[in-house]
Amino acid sequence: MRYFFEISYDGTDYFGWQNQPKQLSVQETIETTLTRLNSNIPVSIVGCGRTDTGVHAKQYFFHADLNENVDSIQLLYKLNKMLPTSISVQNIFEVESEKHARFSATKRTYRYFVHLRKNPFASKHSTYFPQPLDFDIMNEAAALLVGKHDFTTFSKTNTDVKSHDCDVFKAKWFKDSEDSWYFEYTSNRFLRNMVRATVGTLFDVGTGKLSVGDFKAILESKNRSKSSGSADANGLFLWEIEY
Amino acid sequence: MRYFFEISYDGTDYFGWQNQPKQLSVQETIETTLTRLNSNIPVSIVGCGRTDTGVHAKQYFFHADLNENVDSIQLLYKLNKMLPTSISVQNIFEVESEKHARFSATKRTYRYFVHLRKNPFASKHSTYFPQPLDFDIMNEAAALLVGKHDFTTFSKTNTDVKSHDCDVFKAKWFKDSEDSWYFEYTSNRFLRNMVRATVGTLFDVGTGKLSVGDFKAILESKNRSKSSGSADANGLFLWEIEY
Repeated sequence: MRYFFEISYDGTDYFGWQNQPKQLSVQETIETTLTRLNSNIPVSIVGCGRTDTGVHAKQYFFHADLNENVDSIQLLYKLNKMLPTSISVQNIFEVESEKHARFSATKRTYRYFVHLRKNPFASKHSTYFPQPLDFDIMNEAAALLVGKHDFTTFSKTNTDVKSHDCDVFKAKWFKDSEDSWYFEYTSNRFLRNMVRATVGTLFDVGTGKLSVGDFKAILESKNRSKSSGSADANGLFLWEIEY
Repeated sequence: MRYFFEISYDGTDYFGWQNQPKQLSVQETIETTLTRLNSNIPVSIVGCGRTDTGVHAKQYFFHADLNENVDSIQLLYKLNKMLPTSISVQNIFEVESEKHARFSATKRTYRYFVHLRKNPFASKHSTYFPQPLDFDIMNEAAALLVGKHDFTTFSKTNTDVKSHDCDVFKAKWFKDSEDSWYFEYTSNRFLRNMVRATVGTLFDVGTGKLSVGDFKAILESKNRSKSSGSADANGLFLWEIEY
């Protein structure tokens, strides 16, 4: 039987979602716990995507094929008790065997949080940006991202993807308050490093270092070396996955 | 010249506000920084009250007597740059020389945050309470705290205070959402451990371990050994000080 698990995690102390040879990942932490609950018969899980070191997930799905009929309420309870505070499980439900946590996803949404005034309580889940930023100009540039584009500019080089085309449905800044903003980014797919490279470049637009015209030229250049530095990981959340 | 400083701090990594011989306090962290900014001539500060290890402050005031006329905008900027992320300064303003951060305060408000569903993002600033709690019954008991009472029951023993009378203006639970609640507690003064001992005892009312009548008897007993265990520090914020 294939089961989907809906979880959240605080990525601060993990080297990303994906298993790593020598460093603690979210995936390994969950697989170890599921294996213990499975009489030590190894359980492998398949996540809906990779998240980098320090990146969080408000909503994340993975799937696992479990032998027997599972009491999902009991399993949810046990998992939440055994997993560290940094990982919580909200739902476990049975799905059809061809449904795949990664390949069946049709839309993904990320949010990037930034605070403009020093805030001791925000620091793990938002990036402090001490310079003034022009909200409206950043949204003018962000609007250029919407639609189908080649995102080579905003992806890591040397990845093995065949295409760099992404179909972006939403790319917009919002204000939670005068000093706390977030960028919402929805696409059919995201390339590695795409959100942080986009946000880093939008910051340069917000400070006036780049114009909206520059931003457009950078996107169209399909050249990774033209984008600005990546924004820090701590402000980034995988926010929602649609199937 | 006497100056008031309005600050916030995340208490997670500090052994409370007050200077300690061998452990890092918020006070020491600020005094060290102010001393560096004062050509290494020692600066002492006086806080509006003590907070225990791990307790946070959304609003906190301290005062310092500084020799010269201070450029408070410059000082604010430098302090925020030099102090760790866990401490932020919002305002610095001159006051009359008899105004005292601790003794001139007329009301203090604490908030105690609790979440009833495992939440990786709340864990540093709210306490996870996995058992069901009866919100209305807790508020029935909390209402008994309002007014002038002897709070010996909810204070640390062996403190040197002359009186245990506190005049409580507000003691009430609120819901931020179905799973995230907080207790707001306003009084002219608070005894050591009073908020956490009160909240711990209210939790026992919320789970049904104690009745509202039991809670009343415990308050009136003036006997520390009758109160329940203290609630954890991580959910507690000093929230507002009035002068």
